[in-house]
Amino acid sequence: MESRPSTLYRQNLSLLTDLYQLTMAQGYWREGIADREACFYLSFRRCPFRGAYAVACGLADAVDLLKSLHFGDEDLAYLATLCGNDDRPLFQPAFLTWLGQQRFTCDVDAVPEGSLVFPHEPLMRVVGPLAMAQIVETPLLNIINFQTLIATKAARIVSAAAGPVIEFGLRRAQGIDGALSASRAAWVGGVSGTSNLLAGRLHGIPVRGTHAHSWVMVFDDELDAFQRYAEAMPNNCVFLVDTYDTVQGVHRAVAAAHKLRARGHELVGIRLDSGDMGELAEQARTILDEGGFPDAVVVGSNDLDEHRIAELRARGAPVGVWGVGTRLVTGHDQPALGGVYKLSAIRDAEGRWSPRLKRSDSPVKVSYPGLLAVRRYRDANTGALLGDLLYDETQAPTAIPPGLPQDALAHELLEPVLRQGVQVRPTSDLPTARARCGDALDRLPAEHRSLVGSTSYPVHIDPALQAARQRLLARSQDTPS
Amino acid sequence: MESRPSTLYRQNLSLLTDLYQLTMAQGYWREGIADREACFYLSFRRCPFRGAYAVACGLADAVDLLKSLHFGDEDLAYLATLCGNDDRPLFQPAFLTWLGQQRFTCDVDAVPEGSLVFPHEPLMRVVGPLAMAQIVETPLLNIINFQTLIATKAARIVSAAAGPVIEFGLRRAQGIDGALSASRAAWVGGVSGTSNLLAGRLHGIPVRGTHAHSWVMVFDDELDAFQRYAEAMPNNCVFLVDTYDTVQGVHRAVAAAHKLRARGHELVGIRLDSGDMGELAEQARTILDEGGFPDAVVVGSNDLDEHRIAELRARGAPVGVWGVGTRLVTGHDQPALGGVYKLSAIRDAEGRWSPRLKRSDSPVKVSYPGLLAVRRYRDANTGALLGDLLYDETQAPTAIPPGLPQDALAHELLEPVLRQGVQVRPTSDLPTARARCGDALDRLPAEHRSLVGSTSYPVHIDPALQAARQRLLARSQDTPS
Repeated sequence: MESRPSTLYRQNLSLLTDLYQLTMAQGYWREGIADREACFYLSFRRCPFRGAYAVACGLADAVDLLKSLHFGDEDLAYLATLCGNDDRPLFQPAFLTWLGQQRFTCDVDAVPEGSLVFPHEPLMRVVGPLAMAQIVETPLLNIINFQTLIATKAARIVSAAAGPVIEFGLRRAQGIDGALSASRAAWVGGVSGTSNLLAGRLHGIPVRGTHAHSWVMVFDDELDAFQRYAEAMPNNCVFLVDTYDTVQGVHRAVAAAHKLRARGHELVGIRLDSGDMGELAEQARTILDEGGFPDAVVVGSNDLDEHRIAELRARGAPVGVWGVGTRLVTGHDQPALGGVYKLSAIRDAEGRWSPRLKRSDSPVKVSYPGLLAVRRYRDANTGALLGDLLYDETQAPTAIPPGLPQDALAHELLEPVLRQGVQVRPTSDLPTARARCGDALDRLPAEHRSLVGSTSYPVHIDPALQAARQRLLARSQDTPS
Repeated sequence: MESRPSTLYRQNLSLLTDLYQLTMAQGYWREGIADREACFYLSFRRCPFRGAYAVACGLADAVDLLKSLHFGDEDLAYLATLCGNDDRPLFQPAFLTWLGQQRFTCDVDAVPEGSLVFPHEPLMRVVGPLAMAQIVETPLLNIINFQTLIATKAARIVSAAAGPVIEFGLRRAQGIDGALSASRAAWVGGVSGTSNLLAGRLHGIPVRGTHAHSWVMVFDDELDAFQRYAEAMPNNCVFLVDTYDTVQGVHRAVAAAHKLRARGHELVGIRLDSGDMGELAEQARTILDEGGFPDAVVVGSNDLDEHRIAELRARGAPVGVWGVGTRLVTGHDQPALGGVYKLSAIRDAEGRWSPRLKRSDSPVKVSYPGLLAVRRYRDANTGALLGDLLYDETQAPTAIPPGLPQDALAHELLEPVLRQGVQVRPTSDLPTARARCGDALDRLPAEHRSLVGSTSYPVHIDPALQAARQRLLARSQDTPS
């Protein structure tokens, strides 16, 4: 089953791009090169959160947007109203007529969702008519940057936590699909559930929840509130114990749990949402154990992220389930992945591919030219990831990168998704993407998985690609014209 | 004209809430108190970005969601599939039938968009049937938290910049309406335009743009690229000059601008997107002036925020227009406003309002009880904001807060928006909200407007409210039951 994109995307979002994409498109059209075949690739330069990997995510939503791309009458009428500094229209009527006839007819190759990706590797490669390949830059970056960021954050948090992680972020997420796509990406990255019912319905993610302080505040006392909640929801009882005094709250939870047990149901657990979680979790654990509820879980929530969870676990805090909200769904310590979308080749007037490169004084910002592809090598015995090779498809590499065993297994990371705009392979469903992520993380050597201070995963540059890049760089420094 | 909410919200988003809201709703329903009148208020505890104010934003989208709230057959069918730890349904069929009949019939009072708001003040107050007032907690927080965060960030950036600020954030925003609502909120907060065409069409925001590096890379040399862009877009020419070498790029921009002028058009400016912006802006300014283009503007972009802009301005960098993306639309240094939605009163069985409070060991987290309202005082002569008064509407304050002049002008900050779910006042259109923000910032004393280290704006607590809070706090410390 193919993943079902959020209904939020199921409308005409063609104008969801930067104005400059359309002014450039008009320029290409005017120059007669709008249909010249070009190659762009989407990549990032540094892994987020000071880690050494990222988890590719967002492809299904991106493909959905590409397939539905067309500028309708309302869009064109709006564009016709836009003026330049002389109060005359920015767009020529003939260009707008042409634009209204365009569809997205490019070839797209992409890394399947849930795959591990590393700096400079194309997460997506778009080959096709220059103008349309250009226009989709902004929405592709919007979707892939954010979902990749959050899938990565989730993978880090899940790896820090021993037990299940539940995503609670809707109330602090950046807008409605800031929440929905965060829930989706967090699920791919490995969380066990979400509090967001709409994300649950749209994406099939298990939904989880407890109750709020307000439930306790509605009743005259806390024990009464717990007992009534247990009567209303006997098979999903996690009591939030910190509305008044946490330790007393746990004692009252135990009292309510005994009555619940007498009615044939078991307490699922208690939730801590404030205070010194390490200390309070210890106390709660003891009270639950001594009260006869050793199987009741302590759920911890309150501004958690991978670092706080790791610290609490290092202190031995007996937290069994982690509720993580704001710091997961916003990627709090780095709320944007700096992904870019770069032109890497264009056909010349004679139809030959001409590689292109963006120069920069900052070496990491110099782009790679050509029709980029990535080959991933795994150990033939253990399946462990050994390293990747970035190369130009028009100059297929002849040798395994130095240092890798000759019997290493290799596979191509990019898979065909669209051919001339038509989908040729379904995107992965979410359980498959999620399993792919978990499997890849298991195969990634531990030295690349630390929360901070990881060593970089080896991304080898094919010698032919490296040489082509150097040639182009030298030529651009000759500063043409 | 009323602001037109994004079409993204124009669908059934009723399930866009946390599971626990519906488990609590079932509990209230089971207890026979789902229709008991309750009062909740939405507020934040600390101003974002270490500043001393926030700009209220998002109301029109929130109202749109409230008015359309209803659980349809598909929603109810989904809810019926959810199970507890015994694999039996979480929700009773009779509750789901009841839920499907509910609409949002509460009274809502809210601060108009673009108003300045301060810690503990209700941005929105919801009074009505307990269950539905509870269910909307999560979507209201989602919408108001994010848009208020970004409107505030924009106001800070605009105040740091001398010239216009253009919002460029779509490619790094957190999802599609993470971008669209950020563009909307940034406009309310004072930016002059956006690069996002869909935000422009939906919200009437002026759209702006230049061109990308890829335009330059498509052609064989930079001067040629500039000249062709000038031919395609003569009335909107801002050349991006850093594809290869920035200083040479500016010289080529001047060369292209002379040809443009010969055809009767003027260069709008050049854009710097990398390197030492202070240094490069100086050089670019000199080249443009000496080249005969003193009116061409230098546009600066590249990871800007209010602090970098203030630093560049302090160094005298001759940047005339600021393009701000990632750090604006994600609220980069604090990507979430910690707004909360608290129960503050509920009718008892006899129909009397019973005030409620959430206790916390952290004093700033103790909530305020009652039907909260805010009165704002202004200087009768200058119109300067003098301070606010937080009070319980059922105990109207008798005196002006101490220290304020007796002739201070007062007005109520909260305005009626919905009565029993029916809209009684249109929300502000965006130009009105934007003007309100600019006007309020002009009236806010400078000591509360510094980027960091501002003194807090005085929010006085009415003595009767303070006393009621102390009484409830003492009672909760007696730990009932």
